[in-house]
Amino acid sequence: MKIKKLPPVNGVRMVAEREPQQDAYMIWPERPDNWRDGAKPAQHAFAKLANLIGKFEPITMFVSSKQYLNARHLLNDTVRVLEMSSDDAFIKDTGPIYIDVAGQLRGVAFGFNAWGGLLDGLYFPWDQDQLIASKLAELNYVPYYDERNLNVEGCSIITDGQGTLITTEDVLLSEGRNAGQSKEEIETVLKRYLGVSQIIWLQHGFFLDETNGAIDNMMNFIAPGEVVLTWTDDKQDPMYETVRQAEAILNRSKDARGHQLKVHHLRMPAVQTVTKTETESIDPINGLLPRTAGQRLTTSYVNYVLVNGAVIVPQFDDHNDADAVSQLKALFVDRQVIPFNAREMVLGGGGLHTVVHTRPDATSFGGK
Amino acid sequence: MKIKKLPPVNGVRMVAEREPQQDAYMIWPERPDNWRDGAKPAQHAFAKLANLIGKFEPITMFVSSKQYLNARHLLNDTVRVLEMSSDDAFIKDTGPIYIDVAGQLRGVAFGFNAWGGLLDGLYFPWDQDQLIASKLAELNYVPYYDERNLNVEGCSIITDGQGTLITTEDVLLSEGRNAGQSKEEIETVLKRYLGVSQIIWLQHGFFLDETNGAIDNMMNFIAPGEVVLTWTDDKQDPMYETVRQAEAILNRSKDARGHQLKVHHLRMPAVQTVTKTETESIDPINGLLPRTAGQRLTTSYVNYVLVNGAVIVPQFDDHNDADAVSQLKALFVDRQVIPFNAREMVLGGGGLHTVVHTRPDATSFGGK
Repeated sequence: MKIKKLPPVNGVRMVAEREPQQDAYMIWPERPDNWRDGAKPAQHAFAKLANLIGKFEPITMFVSSKQYLNARHLLNDTVRVLEMSSDDAFIKDTGPIYIDVAGQLRGVAFGFNAWGGLLDGLYFPWDQDQLIASKLAELNYVPYYDERNLNVEGCSIITDGQGTLITTEDVLLSEGRNAGQSKEEIETVLKRYLGVSQIIWLQHGFFLDETNGAIDNMMNFIAPGEVVLTWTDDKQDPMYETVRQAEAILNRSKDARGHQLKVHHLRMPAVQTVTKTETESIDPINGLLPRTAGQRLTTSYVNYVLVNGAVIVPQFDDHNDADAVSQLKALFVDRQVIPFNAREMVLGGGGLHTVVHTRPDATSFGGK
Repeated sequence: MKIKKLPPVNGVRMVAEREPQQDAYMIWPERPDNWRDGAKPAQHAFAKLANLIGKFEPITMFVSSKQYLNARHLLNDTVRVLEMSSDDAFIKDTGPIYIDVAGQLRGVAFGFNAWGGLLDGLYFPWDQDQLIASKLAELNYVPYYDERNLNVEGCSIITDGQGTLITTEDVLLSEGRNAGQSKEEIETVLKRYLGVSQIIWLQHGFFLDETNGAIDNMMNFIAPGEVVLTWTDDKQDPMYETVRQAEAILNRSKDARGHQLKVHHLRMPAVQTVTKTETESIDPINGLLPRTAGQRLTTSYVNYVLVNGAVIVPQFDDHNDADAVSQLKALFVDRQVIPFNAREMVLGGGGLHTVVHTRPDATSFGGK
């Protein structure tokens, strides 16, 4: 149910991904103008990921009417399959942002315009994706606030759950999303709806990220006060300067509690590109970004997924894969660290983190 | 999740409609070849009914992707709206039959072939309606048994919740549904899946009922040992003999506890017919039964809906309406009795009882 007022001024807290979760949600990939081979390889990869998450917590797969039986067939019995229309599968961007309002779980439905609307968005129309935040909240009887006047995707903001939010100028200040809104104006809305008190702005996200550069390919929180940043020492890589600039910003910032952030580097895989075969089987319609052979893929190990008791880490058949896993094992000592090949998700313009939306367990809020 | 075995031999009990309910479900009417004027009058009537039920218990409206926003707009905030594909709106026939298995709620998904399949069914295809029982069970994480080899609609069977089931030969023995199955063979399956021990067969349902004569326009249980039977004293009415034959069968039957049934008469409204205007605005396609001006409508007061604390009684702008309400007030002393105009539902071939599916509250099972 939509809450037809603003959140309270006090007692609001954006919930962190690492907190206990009630369940998880994904959307079945279907569009043949984004996912190669009629989305079949992606569907198998999504099914594998959902089946894996089902070992750790309840998970629901949303699917169109037409693909219902196929999804039901490919998914384990532990995965619940429900119908929901969508324009694409990036539920972390389109689902509600969860906040803890005095111990109660609430959602926030921001605007969504396919990462840039008619200016530089990735597809048209996006009317179904725009409804996912409210539909998902309504499914679970989670009352939600509605602020459609600001376009904010879930992957464009990360939090420590203690009042700090990190985002990128590339995304939130992009003309396609929030033209005419200043950084200060956007901060006011984020603070009001998400209960954050400290907002750290990186300038850039990942080079060539179709979203303009969402934060979730650049970095994420391990715990309050501690982050991982994607990294490269290759001076030829356009990311060389970007990650250093990001680190400099982080080093001169304080979190909401006034502490400096500890920054761990996660060395990215070697440059990966799309093959000719992979591009040829995509329908070249609808104004999606062209997928051309040789195009660089947005590959980053910080794009992991947290579920109860586990970290699912993207893998790319790269020599850095194992290092990323062992580094994350050292950082998440209480979780299983599970490698998962993310190429199909990345080929579609996303990553593991973009295709999973988790709902916090409100019964855990009391203890904070 | 589908339970891939038979129910236990003991401890199974089909749950009665009068028992405490967790929530209710309806399906948005949409098809313009069944519902007049593009289903708009029906949609308004369904919205009114759902909004009413929402005062007594949680209710969910299932709707297609295309009608989602319209349904969401017409329904109160207390009604949850979820996407689910369907072929038509008769969820009591297509939803799961609920059983109490040793105190746990379970569903049974029988076969559904649109009330007679290719022989005398009401539409083709019925593939989406066939999925509703399992989809609804899965939504609520209710494990369900699957016996698709027998076609059984929810409106074709009523129970006292204590081992007695009443049905009609017109429906369960119809060639379109269960050709080649004897009464004894069907009884064996019903007893096995629904835990009933005593099955009473009326020969006929309501004259001209499109379902061949479902039990729910003929009679229903008030309580164990007590039923209401639709009634007429008009010798010209084809129902005159039918209701007397039904009463004779009930009088010589015993329920599962060995008791005789007390039979109350509910005098039906005067003969009602479809108007020319009402038929002209239905798309004459797809093999649905023709709706012709002057055709008699299946109007019966026993087609009421039970929700927590209330009985919703069909009304037909007839001089018998008030009598039905006052009789049901005397029979359901602990419930509000709420009159509700049922003409739009009846014009579409159903009735109030056919368009509402209620889920028992399993926490009430322990006390039995």
